[in-house]
Amino acid sequence: MAQTPAVSPLAPKDGFPAMPELPGVRFASHQAGIRYQGRTDLLVLEMPAGTQAAGVLTTSKTRSAPVDWCAQALQKGRGRVLVVNAGNANAFTGVRGEASVARTVDAACSLFGCKASEVYVSSTGTIGEFLPDERITDALPLVKDKLDGKDWLSAAKAIMTTDTYPKGATRTAVINGVTVTLNGIAKGSGMIAPAMGTMLSYVFTDANIPADVLQALLKKGVDRSFNSITVDGDTSTSDTLLLFATGSAGNKEPKSADDKDLKDFKKKLFDLLLDLSHQVVRDGEGATKLVEIRVTGAASDRAARAIGLTIGNSPLVKTAVAGEDANWGRIVAAVGKAGEKADRDRLCIRIGGVEVASNGLAVPDYDETPVVAHMKGQEILFEVDVGVGKGKATVWTCDLTHGYIDINGSYRS
Amino acid sequence: MAQTPAVSPLAPKDGFPAMPELPGVRFASHQAGIRYQGRTDLLVLEMPAGTQAAGVLTTSKTRSAPVDWCAQALQKGRGRVLVVNAGNANAFTGVRGEASVARTVDAACSLFGCKASEVYVSSTGTIGEFLPDERITDALPLVKDKLDGKDWLSAAKAIMTTDTYPKGATRTAVINGVTVTLNGIAKGSGMIAPAMGTMLSYVFTDANIPADVLQALLKKGVDRSFNSITVDGDTSTSDTLLLFATGSAGNKEPKSADDKDLKDFKKKLFDLLLDLSHQVVRDGEGATKLVEIRVTGAASDRAARAIGLTIGNSPLVKTAVAGEDANWGRIVAAVGKAGEKADRDRLCIRIGGVEVASNGLAVPDYDETPVVAHMKGQEILFEVDVGVGKGKATVWTCDLTHGYIDINGSYRS
Repeated sequence: MAQTPAVSPLAPKDGFPAMPELPGVRFASHQAGIRYQGRTDLLVLEMPAGTQAAGVLTTSKTRSAPVDWCAQALQKGRGRVLVVNAGNANAFTGVRGEASVARTVDAACSLFGCKASEVYVSSTGTIGEFLPDERITDALPLVKDKLDGKDWLSAAKAIMTTDTYPKGATRTAVINGVTVTLNGIAKGSGMIAPAMGTMLSYVFTDANIPADVLQALLKKGVDRSFNSITVDGDTSTSDTLLLFATGSAGNKEPKSADDKDLKDFKKKLFDLLLDLSHQVVRDGEGATKLVEIRVTGAASDRAARAIGLTIGNSPLVKTAVAGEDANWGRIVAAVGKAGEKADRDRLCIRIGGVEVASNGLAVPDYDETPVVAHMKGQEILFEVDVGVGKGKATVWTCDLTHGYIDINGSYRS
Repeated sequence: MAQTPAVSPLAPKDGFPAMPELPGVRFASHQAGIRYQGRTDLLVLEMPAGTQAAGVLTTSKTRSAPVDWCAQALQKGRGRVLVVNAGNANAFTGVRGEASVARTVDAACSLFGCKASEVYVSSTGTIGEFLPDERITDALPLVKDKLDGKDWLSAAKAIMTTDTYPKGATRTAVINGVTVTLNGIAKGSGMIAPAMGTMLSYVFTDANIPADVLQALLKKGVDRSFNSITVDGDTSTSDTLLLFATGSAGNKEPKSADDKDLKDFKKKLFDLLLDLSHQVVRDGEGATKLVEIRVTGAASDRAARAIGLTIGNSPLVKTAVAGEDANWGRIVAAVGKAGEKADRDRLCIRIGGVEVASNGLAVPDYDETPVVAHMKGQEILFEVDVGVGKGKATVWTCDLTHGYIDINGSYRS
């Protein structure tokens, strides 16, 4: 087993943000002893009646039992209770996994007096081991007595697996004159223990927004944030992003995601999702550099994102970044591999703002000094114009280092 | 620059095979000084009039100028001369790259008295640098004087970049009572110098087979061999596989790829392609283990291959292999990510022949001893049944080690 990593060098300099209370949103964490000892591994969160729910779940064909459950619950679009455990993903556990979810949901709805479809369950940790769900159901009454709305930091810590720092973000937005708050927490890409089911994120707001509108907003926001980051291109069995709106702010209810009253809320929601997703990639296993890849000139925004992710997932590009090598030839190769329309002879590449390749050719005698200096920094910028259209996208990744091999090559024992 | 690697621990135990002469096929290598000093970097090969040609080229959208040229030449289906240089990929070199190819082709057809469309050119090495083609054209008359049909080992060596061993294979087959020979050479995945355009392979036979039949056979064979291996999932700008048939064996000409006279030839051709492709993956950068992934129960053979390649490209699976960790949870996650139909609850996984997961569940208390021993070996076998149909495929990859990071993270200079 690799030793516990220190905090990622890319962790936000300001630490965990000060996050305000949201009326009616109360939570507590607990040491349930699911896998870890001496740390919290269970988060229970209660929301007021009428809370609207939206969510985006992993596209994996081997998704976990809790994800199956969330997909079903989301069809009703209401939320009252969220139960998250770390240490065991309850994935690849068959009917026993489903039964674990059912028992947890039953216990939660009895205790909180709500419908089963208002309970959301997530599990993150080892794949293929049965979840000792009695440790969760036994703990639920104890946790209920501790519920409070203040300590978001503890909530973020309870859902960590081998993340090197807790992840949170907060924003305020104005909807038709009413100020609303958005609070989000996430866990990311720690995988020292084997096959952790990776990404979980929960966002809460007091805004009054119906579930269908919430879902449309979330779908749009996630494409530009969580779906635009990559650590190693490996999709988890458990990726879950849920957005809950309690409505306590009392703003006039918007009718659609295009409602102009939602302009500021949308902006702040996207911004918060981006913040959380960046915190996840900054905690990428073994990461020492954050890489932003801006793709322009693609056939569509979708094509631009596909090209960006192909660059961001290329082991050759990522090892070059680790080696502080401005190796744009590997970016060219990655663009070619993406399978999206690109004009080789109009391709332009800038590194740290310096054009190194233009119209399908190396820029002869470009000034290497600023490029070399840029590659030695902690935040790397690649700009790639593929010369065929107006599609654009920005994607974030991290470098591929010996740390990644250390973390993921260690034996489970 | 990382130090020159020793020979891969996975190199074939028997070394380079004894390869017979093929009537009319003559070749020579040369120190043209294109990038390397003190080693050969140019291969020129002459074939008799009437030689039929087939080829499979990279699907990259940023393919190199020589690949563009080969695509055009292959439309005529004839071959007389092959010119290959190492050290410079002539990729991302725009019109100057095209002009380099044109000058090389012109020089070759003047010297050998053939048509331009009968000349094939390949370049492998750094991307984005202009090819000093005068070093090739100046050398051509000198090389022509040295042509001989014997030394296939030297031919294989001349096309290496940072391969750790030369790659060759030979087979004989019987077509309608006539014995024919197949000789192939390949270069693989050495990428110490930046962005080498990776895979090149050339196969020669004295069989009498028309170009269209040859193309159909090659297409089929490549799916099961070169298109079923992966080192890092990065597609090169230069991947080229050419198959030439001189016809000197004088067998009765087959009319189609389904001709039953071709049964043995097909078998031996596929076998030779598989041999060469395995030699390439065994020389994967930093590789210490060869991994065979057999996928069964998929919706189609194509789906099975896609699932196999997703497993084979997963950094989490590959680092687990490097760490000798039988971490089948990562295989489950990779199956889910592949996007092909799979029944999570019927998924079965065997490692080294031992069932570790069955019908969507961990096999309780399976005997870990033989699995642990298997993972410590040099050749690893994963068998995955995804439980939805009869599609099957086998895919080969290598582990992801610190050696890969060392080789690809080193600065170019």
